[in-house]
Amino acid sequence: MPELRKDPITGRWVIISTDRSRRPSDFLRESVQIKGVPLCPFCPGNEGKTPPEVLAYGRNGGAKDTPGWTVRVVPNKFPALGIEGGLDREGDGLFDRMNGIGAHEVIIETPDHNATLSTMSAKSLEEMLWAYRDRVLDLKNDRRFRYVLLFKNHGEAAGATLEHTHSQLIALPIVPKRVLEEVDSSRHYYDEKERCIFCDMIRQEMENKARVVSMNDLFIAIEPYAPRFPFETWILPRQHSSAFEHMPTPSYRSLADLLGDFLKRMDSTLVYPAYNFVIHTSPIGEEMNDFYHWHIEMMPKLTKVAGFEWGTGFYINPTPPEEAARFLREAKI
Amino acid sequence: MPELRKDPITGRWVIISTDRSRRPSDFLRESVQIKGVPLCPFCPGNEGKTPPEVLAYGRNGGAKDTPGWTVRVVPNKFPALGIEGGLDREGDGLFDRMNGIGAHEVIIETPDHNATLSTMSAKSLEEMLWAYRDRVLDLKNDRRFRYVLLFKNHGEAAGATLEHTHSQLIALPIVPKRVLEEVDSSRHYYDEKERCIFCDMIRQEMENKARVVSMNDLFIAIEPYAPRFPFETWILPRQHSSAFEHMPTPSYRSLADLLGDFLKRMDSTLVYPAYNFVIHTSPIGEEMNDFYHWHIEMMPKLTKVAGFEWGTGFYINPTPPEEAARFLREAKI
Repeated sequence: MPELRKDPITGRWVIISTDRSRRPSDFLRESVQIKGVPLCPFCPGNEGKTPPEVLAYGRNGGAKDTPGWTVRVVPNKFPALGIEGGLDREGDGLFDRMNGIGAHEVIIETPDHNATLSTMSAKSLEEMLWAYRDRVLDLKNDRRFRYVLLFKNHGEAAGATLEHTHSQLIALPIVPKRVLEEVDSSRHYYDEKERCIFCDMIRQEMENKARVVSMNDLFIAIEPYAPRFPFETWILPRQHSSAFEHMPTPSYRSLADLLGDFLKRMDSTLVYPAYNFVIHTSPIGEEMNDFYHWHIEMMPKLTKVAGFEWGTGFYINPTPPEEAARFLREAKI
Repeated sequence: MPELRKDPITGRWVIISTDRSRRPSDFLRESVQIKGVPLCPFCPGNEGKTPPEVLAYGRNGGAKDTPGWTVRVVPNKFPALGIEGGLDREGDGLFDRMNGIGAHEVIIETPDHNATLSTMSAKSLEEMLWAYRDRVLDLKNDRRFRYVLLFKNHGEAAGATLEHTHSQLIALPIVPKRVLEEVDSSRHYYDEKERCIFCDMIRQEMENKARVVSMNDLFIAIEPYAPRFPFETWILPRQHSSAFEHMPTPSYRSLADLLGDFLKRMDSTLVYPAYNFVIHTSPIGEEMNDFYHWHIEMMPKLTKVAGFEWGTGFYINPTPPEEAARFLREAKI
């Protein structure tokens, strides 16, 4: 019998289709392979092929936009938003618009064209997370912005257009809808119970254990109770923390450790899948709060999403999260 | 300068990326082609390959599950939900679940394997719409259900697994999240203004004209102000109507006419794209109301949806709806 499950944070129901339950080997997909390209704009030596960098680590006194860096952040050459100008909010009858003001940057996570996040060292992942934090803290000085979105598309099937591993950042004058829904719902829960709903969920998952993939001193990776996609995974700080960019510095190393461990498990279980992840954190201006709990949402790209899922926000997931968690826990890494 | 636009019904902001605006010919995609298959379970003569039919038109006195039909509805052979049993709602700490009870049916729109909705006659489309209505009215007698979802996946890229043209129906014990959001938001607007927000939008679009694709006596096809996808199109009744299945019978012919006209325009402009559509109508039990306006949401499959769009509910659309509407209006059909 399939099951209908409700996500307590978003209120979304999903079908967990146990009858036609699918194991990792049942998903038809291409593994992500790094093939190499003749003139990669993200490789050392080609720094001139990107807009001038806004941040780089590891270059001991060397000039900007030259080799020697370990992590490098540059504006996107084809940004979805423009950085110059005012918002010029205006109405048009029923409708609301503003200028598409924002920042769109690329975090080049390593100089090594052949690396992926799951082959990089914990030290390199930590530097990537530091770069995320430094850029968010800098962009928050711009009073036009309400949210900084950090995300990664890995592999062509997940929307990556360049194969050299990189993440992206978009600073926005609005809070994205799904984040806003989560924040509002968490605030409502806190108003009633004076507890964070994510903290309650983590406590319950740690007692139940069936959906826990792995954890360390500070972080935990779980399959959510009502996942939209097979092997959808959330990585959360075990103690309450409302903003990714406000964590104490040692936390980023713990996160790098757990993230690296998780990605190795995912590559092993699902054979190098394409994936997306996105960081959900508190909106600018209310970073420090007791109700919202920042986290990473990881979505391997295993199934085609059909129209009614787009049109309805209602999902059919062929892999129960308890099975996904077991496969990932037992992965050989 | 790109533009940020807000959908007044869902509150979702989208980036309309005018700088890298994309014309129909800029989208890389495969046209949907009907190739024919040796033993199609939806073709006449193969009625035994599907579960026994629940509805068929056009067979003058002939036996069930035999050829001669013009439209045929059968249960899905691999249903996402089970039809037998009770809901057995229960909680598990923070979480809520129930049995996956529901109906999952397939509407075989024509006996002709080589047809598509855009080549079918208006009469055939009208019969398809009648079958939609008859099945919804029948399933509403089952008190376990709160919503009947009608949708179509056309082409493999849009999630269709069989090429013989068909739509699907899922009856659910819950209201899908995005429909519920629209209904709640429309109710809120009505509480304030005592007008339907969709009626107000239609009035504004008919004055402005820039986003109107086509209309006839009863229906209108528009590109929404803040579309998530290039060439996303909504088809709505021009006068207030809260439930698809409660329209007077002659309305379905008008809808068939406009739907056929629109699909021909889309095929011409976008060269036989894969697409999805979904019908948004009022939930069971509140079908007759003044605040919600049923409609079809049509989504041609032209772009890959990247991870941050999944993870955030925030979309970047490279084609302004005013341009999409112009291309569709000027299509040669």
